[in-house]
Amino acid sequence: MTSSNNVQVTVLGLGAMGSALAAALVQAGHPATVWNRSPGKAGELVAQGARAAATVGEAVKAGQVVIACLLDHASVHEVLDPLIDDLAGRTLINVTTTTPAQAREMAAWAAEAGIAYLDGGIMAIPHMIGQPGASILYSGSADVFDEYKPLLDLWATSTYFGEDAGLASLYDLALLSGMYVMWAGFLHGAAMVAPAGVTASQFATMAAPWLTAMTGGFQGLAAVIDGGDYTVEGQQSLEFSSLDDLVAASADQGISTEVIAMVQGLIQRQLDAGHGKEGVARMIESIKHPGH
Amino acid sequence: MTSSNNVQVTVLGLGAMGSALAAALVQAGHPATVWNRSPGKAGELVAQGARAAATVGEAVKAGQVVIACLLDHASVHEVLDPLIDDLAGRTLINVTTTTPAQAREMAAWAAEAGIAYLDGGIMAIPHMIGQPGASILYSGSADVFDEYKPLLDLWATSTYFGEDAGLASLYDLALLSGMYVMWAGFLHGAAMVAPAGVTASQFATMAAPWLTAMTGGFQGLAAVIDGGDYTVEGQQSLEFSSLDDLVAASADQGISTEVIAMVQGLIQRQLDAGHGKEGVARMIESIKHPGH
Ligand SMILES: NC(=O)c1ccc[n+]([C@@H]2O[C@H](COP(=O)([O-])OP(=O)(O)OC[C@H]3O[C@@H](n4cnc5c(N)ncnc54)[C@H](OP(=O)(O)O)[C@@H]3O)[C@@H](O)[C@H]2O)c1
Ligand SMILES: NC(=O)c1ccc[n+]([C@@H]2O[C@H](COP(=O)([O-])OP(=O)(O)OC[C@H]3O[C@@H](n4cnc5c(N)ncnc54)[C@H](OP(=O)(O)O)[C@@H]3O)[C@@H](O)[C@H]2O)c1
Repeated sequence: MTSSNNVQVTVLGLGAMGSALAAALVQAGHPATVWNRSPGKAGELVAQGARAAATVGEAVKAGQVVIACLLDHASVHEVLDPLIDDLAGRTLINVTTTTPAQAREMAAWAAEAGIAYLDGGIMAIPHMIGQPGASILYSGSADVFDEYKPLLDLWATSTYFGEDAGLASLYDLALLSGMYVMWAGFLHGAAMVAPAGVTASQFATMAAPWLTAMTGGFQGLAAVIDGGDYTVEGQQSLEFSSLDDLVAASADQGISTEVIAMVQGLIQRQLDAGHGKEGVARMIESIKHPGH
Repeated sequence: MTSSNNVQVTVLGLGAMGSALAAALVQAGHPATVWNRSPGKAGELVAQGARAAATVGEAVKAGQVVIACLLDHASVHEVLDPLIDDLAGRTLINVTTTTPAQAREMAAWAAEAGIAYLDGGIMAIPHMIGQPGASILYSGSADVFDEYKPLLDLWATSTYFGEDAGLASLYDLALLSGMYVMWAGFLHGAAMVAPAGVTASQFATMAAPWLTAMTGGFQGLAAVIDGGDYTVEGQQSLEFSSLDDLVAASADQGISTEVIAMVQGLIQRQLDAGHGKEGVARMIESIKHPGH
């Protein structure tokens, strides 16, 4: 047993995610105190060995490490601001989804009060917690991350990005953006083939392995971007990447062209600026420099 | 040896892709005649055992099966229209990238002239031809597909979609749309983290497995879409899928919000129509019904 295995842990927030986090702790035999604003959420956890606190103040005082898994940034302040003196000297691990700016604000608030602070971004849905495939991103105090890594690893693969508390959230939002945009691309494709009698499920059977294979191209795009020279040989050029057929075929199918036209716009701005012979990775310049 | 292994095959077009297709045939010991508009492209293939035809007419007459891998639909007509009488009674497999409408037009042109016609859409880059991971989609004559499948399988995994010659192209364009949109999402994420000193390569290392894992959600979205009931339990709801934080964080990083705002727009139109409690798969309705 590592030292962090015996530490008293408190979990604030027993929504879908907070409950999953608390359950992983108690199932691993960890002493845990739990609290939720509305009553009646702790029953199953208590049956498994958790202690339910009657008030949030009692919950905070019971834990050397306090995990916050609430709705949003505002709810964390609402719950913790009145308890700032009780939190001093303790460790706060906040896995509530926030923006990078909010994470930095919370880190500054904690530093001021003498609270050790680690911010987390959860890349998983509740039933994945404790299972392979779940990932949680952390930034803020390296000491907290190092000390409690065995505990954090009960939930997911734990990755630490640096002392800037906003980094985990930034990564989280960047990866979520990638996911939502990919979903839009998948749904656009499914909408294109639907009028031909192809079910979304049939399309998914082709699209999932295809897009998985195409993630294999990310490192190639990244190498060009990081190299800072979009003219290197062997890339697919911007002028080869005309999306006219994709837009025309979408329109022919009677569906909205907005999804694919967005990508066409990124490419077109680089073509208009005279970069047609350069690699398709240059699309990122349209994103990095809005209005160029 | 199957019967198709001894058939005389002609490849028209020795660009990057046509050369790769021809090379796979000759390396498998297949008798092949090759032709390219501009001279000087056949040297390596001839060294490997191909026969170079001096004129396209000669090339067509040498092949029982004619493969067309030219630039686009117009170039296929330009090359083949004058040879329509020579093509009658032969088989044409056209793997030139076209739209569904163009593929259907070519199939009608071929039917009129007594040419057996199969249309193909190549989901690979040239160096993948003959390697695992390459995929070519076909539609049009089932007889042609069945008879020449051993030959087609020398290039890639061959999938047949149906007699409507436009289907392969439709799938091709739908899958390519998914790829380009996913790339835009990846590049958006890379642009978000870049100001924090994260390289595109570091981001790719996280993003590739993350998006691969998230393709695992396609069948779930598809089941809801095909079921026709967006209210079924257990889904991520549209109202839970607010992209406000993603848009705000993108703007905070000084990058364009157009990529993620596109997805936000799809979600918002469904929220505005009162579907917030329904599943996020309902985004497809915004794509299927432009203006709704
Ligand atoms: N679920 C997921 O798939 C997922 C994935 C990644 C990240 N996350 C993040 O994890 C966090 C929790 O998500 P969840 O799925 O557990 O959400 P949830 O099921 O909606 O639960 C929300 C929790 O926050 C509490 N809460 C809300 N406002 C509060 C306030 N003003 N004061 C005190 N408590 C308040 C709720 O208490 P009551 O019971 O009293 O309402 C409940 O415990 C969120 O930041 C979410 O973005 C969730
Ligand atoms: N390369 C890929 O990664 C890839 C992937 C999937 C699908 N494809 C598709 O495969 C097809 C060929 O692509 P590619 O990469 O081989 O292109 P490429 O390297 O640019 O070659 C184009 C070929 O078309 C010929 N051509 C163009 N216009 C012609 C005309 N009017 N008459 C006769 N020949 C003409 C060219 O002949 P000249 O040498 O005389 O110019 C050359 O053989 C395209 O439809 C492409 O979309 C390519």
